[in-house]
Amino acid sequence: MALRLYELVGVEETRPFSPYCWRIRMALAHKGLDATSIPWRFTEKDAISPYKSEKVPVLLDGDASVVDSWAIANYLEVAYPDRPSLFGGEGGRAMARMLNWWGDIAVIGAMFPLIAADIHGHLRPVDQDYFRNTREARFGKSLEAVAADRDAKVEGFRKGLDPLRLTLKSQPFVGGAAPNYADYIMFGGFQWARVTSAFALLKPEDPVYAWREKMLDAFDGMARKSEGYPV
Amino acid sequence: MALRLYELVGVEETRPFSPYCWRIRMALAHKGLDATSIPWRFTEKDAISPYKSEKVPVLLDGDASVVDSWAIANYLEVAYPDRPSLFGGEGGRAMARMLNWWGDIAVIGAMFPLIAADIHGHLRPVDQDYFRNTREARFGKSLEAVAADRDAKVEGFRKGLDPLRLTLKSQPFVGGAAPNYADYIMFGGFQWARVTSAFALLKPEDPVYAWREKMLDAFDGMARKSEGYPV
Repeated sequence: MALRLYELVGVEETRPFSPYCWRIRMALAHKGLDATSIPWRFTEKDAISPYKSEKVPVLLDGDASVVDSWAIANYLEVAYPDRPSLFGGEGGRAMARMLNWWGDIAVIGAMFPLIAADIHGHLRPVDQDYFRNTREARFGKSLEAVAADRDAKVEGFRKGLDPLRLTLKSQPFVGGAAPNYADYIMFGGFQWARVTSAFALLKPEDPVYAWREKMLDAFDGMARKSEGYPV
Repeated sequence: MALRLYELVGVEETRPFSPYCWRIRMALAHKGLDATSIPWRFTEKDAISPYKSEKVPVLLDGDASVVDSWAIANYLEVAYPDRPSLFGGEGGRAMARMLNWWGDIAVIGAMFPLIAADIHGHLRPVDQDYFRNTREARFGKSLEAVAADRDAKVEGFRKGLDPLRLTLKSQPFVGGAAPNYADYIMFGGFQWARVTSAFALLKPEDPVYAWREKMLDAFDGMARKSEGYPV
């Protein structure tokens, strides 16, 4: 049963960048599973409409299709129970649900204004139009205006990472002694930024920075080998 | 082996109010363990200095003493492995570490300015002086000034609960189908407020409100039976 994963890309197919797709890329590696990448772009809605989704990741596993990163992680945990666990038990699965929401808000959501203009620079023209229109409507201002005060705004982003930072002062990974899906939830956002933006989100002395380095090294440097900026 | 728990109280010994002590009260009930309460007040440092702590909770289990709510929860999980698990496995234990930090910041920390002046009203005079001096130094202003804009500040507190709120829209408890220590982490803060303050932290239509009701009903209404304000 070949696994295939629709992954968001821009101009370069070697530069998948969706934070949600990266959560799943890391989860697949954690499970020791290979998946063929199917590059997908924002405006290619038709390609995934058979799976009743307008967004990626979409995972195809033989005849099965699963949409949404949280649903896919749960699918992988159930479908591949003999592989290393993503959650470390039922308590972890339940608590990861909250960490997933926190990651959506405090990592991805707070990071987005800081890198949105840079993401735009990596898209094909037709996707640039789509991205600019939808995101500027969401922000209520131009991508350039959103980017303009990011040197000030990054302080708030960093402060918002305190629960993650304090955890990483208490133990090596969010998942404990070794990374698990809780780490991939958070790392997806940082890899999204690394692939699309040269903006320095973290200071080198930050424990989150050191953790990100370890995540970039995981699985034989899988995430670091993907095209990206030095971080 | 009798368990005993030092719990923070003010004027009334029937009104233990520390959010960290309530985490442990709920954890003990989860494990089906009784513990004799030893009322303790802010200025009674000498009473717990033999345990190398200046704060409560302090748990005494026979000859053993454990300080700090997180350490106590972990102690209970290890010392009473045949009782219901607080974490639901190693993954849950690790992820609860981050939820504990989040609870410290987004629940307890964000809630404190909203109820600090009310806490003061429940203390004995000598503890009032201690509380006012230490907390006003922390805030950089008087307790009354901190309370003055709480009707506006509560909006930010509520917004900060989004990761918890979205989780409770996704599943009944942070711990999944039933509450576990992840829920007690969050609930400790709400019980702290309920015991000391009549200020309305949550709107009745908030999923967090409904979840708090369920937590107040847990263990035969243990938390609701403690002295407190209607919430």
